[in-house]
Amino acid sequence: MNKQQLAEMVFSKKSVLCVGLDSELSKIPAHIREGRSAEDAIVAFNEAIIDATWKYTIAYKPNLAFYEAMGLAGMSALYRTVQYIRSKEEPMFVIADAKRADIGNTSRLYASAFFGDGKTAPDFDAVTVAPYMGKDSVSPFLSFDGKWVVLLALTSNPGADDFQLTTSNDGMQLFERVLAKSKEWGTDENMMYVVGATRAEMLKKVRQIVPENFLLIPGVGAQGGDLNEVLKNGWNKSGGLLINASRSIIFASSGVDFAEAAAAEAGRMQNEMARFINQL
Amino acid sequence: MNKQQLAEMVFSKKSVLCVGLDSELSKIPAHIREGRSAEDAIVAFNEAIIDATWKYTIAYKPNLAFYEAMGLAGMSALYRTVQYIRSKEEPMFVIADAKRADIGNTSRLYASAFFGDGKTAPDFDAVTVAPYMGKDSVSPFLSFDGKWVVLLALTSNPGADDFQLTTSNDGMQLFERVLAKSKEWGTDENMMYVVGATRAEMLKKVRQIVPENFLLIPGVGAQGGDLNEVLKNGWNKSGGLLINASRSIIFASSGVDFAEAAAAEAGRMQNEMARFINQL
Repeated sequence: MNKQQLAEMVFSKKSVLCVGLDSELSKIPAHIREGRSAEDAIVAFNEAIIDATWKYTIAYKPNLAFYEAMGLAGMSALYRTVQYIRSKEEPMFVIADAKRADIGNTSRLYASAFFGDGKTAPDFDAVTVAPYMGKDSVSPFLSFDGKWVVLLALTSNPGADDFQLTTSNDGMQLFERVLAKSKEWGTDENMMYVVGATRAEMLKKVRQIVPENFLLIPGVGAQGGDLNEVLKNGWNKSGGLLINASRSIIFASSGVDFAEAAAAEAGRMQNEMARFINQL
Repeated sequence: MNKQQLAEMVFSKKSVLCVGLDSELSKIPAHIREGRSAEDAIVAFNEAIIDATWKYTIAYKPNLAFYEAMGLAGMSALYRTVQYIRSKEEPMFVIADAKRADIGNTSRLYASAFFGDGKTAPDFDAVTVAPYMGKDSVSPFLSFDGKWVVLLALTSNPGADDFQLTTSNDGMQLFERVLAKSKEWGTDENMMYVVGATRAEMLKKVRQIVPENFLLIPGVGAQGGDLNEVLKNGWNKSGGLLINASRSIIFASSGVDFAEAAAAEAGRMQNEMARFINQL
């Protein structure tokens, strides 16, 4: 999916919502798990969540850890989930939250694992990438037409302070250097950045360096980031935001009404986004 | 495996060799691929390499990218490879070169994916972890008894220059900060570091900060690092090194003699290590 198509989704759906499919088996409602294999339970849960939240959403983001932790059954559930999204008529932006990166030769293989044909390998639109190993670890992901790198810049967790906020001798913080440097590797047509909503005030700083790029914003919802602050500080003329919520949507209820509860929470967030977009 | 057991292997085998099982299907000799599924070909190749190099080696390190790029068949081949190593009577240190890390809650799941029971999840001894997201992304891997984090510090690729060598306003380079800071999170009993052999002169600097820890050294062999320099600059009283070679061993020949050629190259490296150890 290219940037223009993504921006069109933003304005037609009046949404920048991304639903994180962090589908931990033990948290899936009991009635879904009953009589199903682990793999089938995850797929049934994801399909119900996807159907319930589809109209409020422009992106889904499974985090690989939740699937890898279940071994081959989990990976198969992940592939089937992406296939289910691709079986719909409408487009959808799908992000592999994998935080991969390796030396160039090896990153190329990771890229092929996520940007596949939809059969032997899932056809994600984007993959999250860690910047620590630098240019040649990121570049191989950028050579796929219509595919995206979502590079970690400023994450939403406490540990972000340990290195990302370190100031170098030229006055730049590490996350700013990651933004500035990586602009030389890709464009706003194939590179997005992770910027945690728990640091919404930092979005202004981020926007000075990467005004045109889409940003993937985790940390709204269960992690406590403020949605309206993010919209105000992060918005650009393409929308420029994918605001992710995971647990607060998919585990909004652990009962038989889990899908309705997920729809209600996704709808509540989309409503706030629509209100913001309507005022533009 | 604990540190003492690892050190005992170093001195009994007179080796710090780690063989990287970067078993890319297209590079596997044709006679192994013939008549076999992709999964079976990888497993047959790995088993032959393992048998041929076992006596020269104290560790194996499959890089996950090579297996993930083959989808479920690749992941199954990886699991079977680890099971094969565990089926031997002798101990062996096995590293998942996965370069994972996520927010704490999620890193916990990655850890369980690699530190499994050997059935539904492989039982690696160690996993490589990327430091960018800081303490809470690394700590969950440290709470498994006898298991290890191998944290990226200074990698062997050109992109290492982009961020790892950045000097902060207190005069510390980023890789030095990663070493110094992470010492607060783990000990030399559960934390190792990746330090590329292509920067062997930096090993002295690294040893000033982490004198006791084991270091995983990629970049000897195909990437051109000098083995003897690494031994001289990196050695400590436990050995303290795992020197990895991948392609230069496993693809030493693409013919029917691939296993003998791998053994010869592994033996050549182990010989140089033994010579160094005998002179101590």
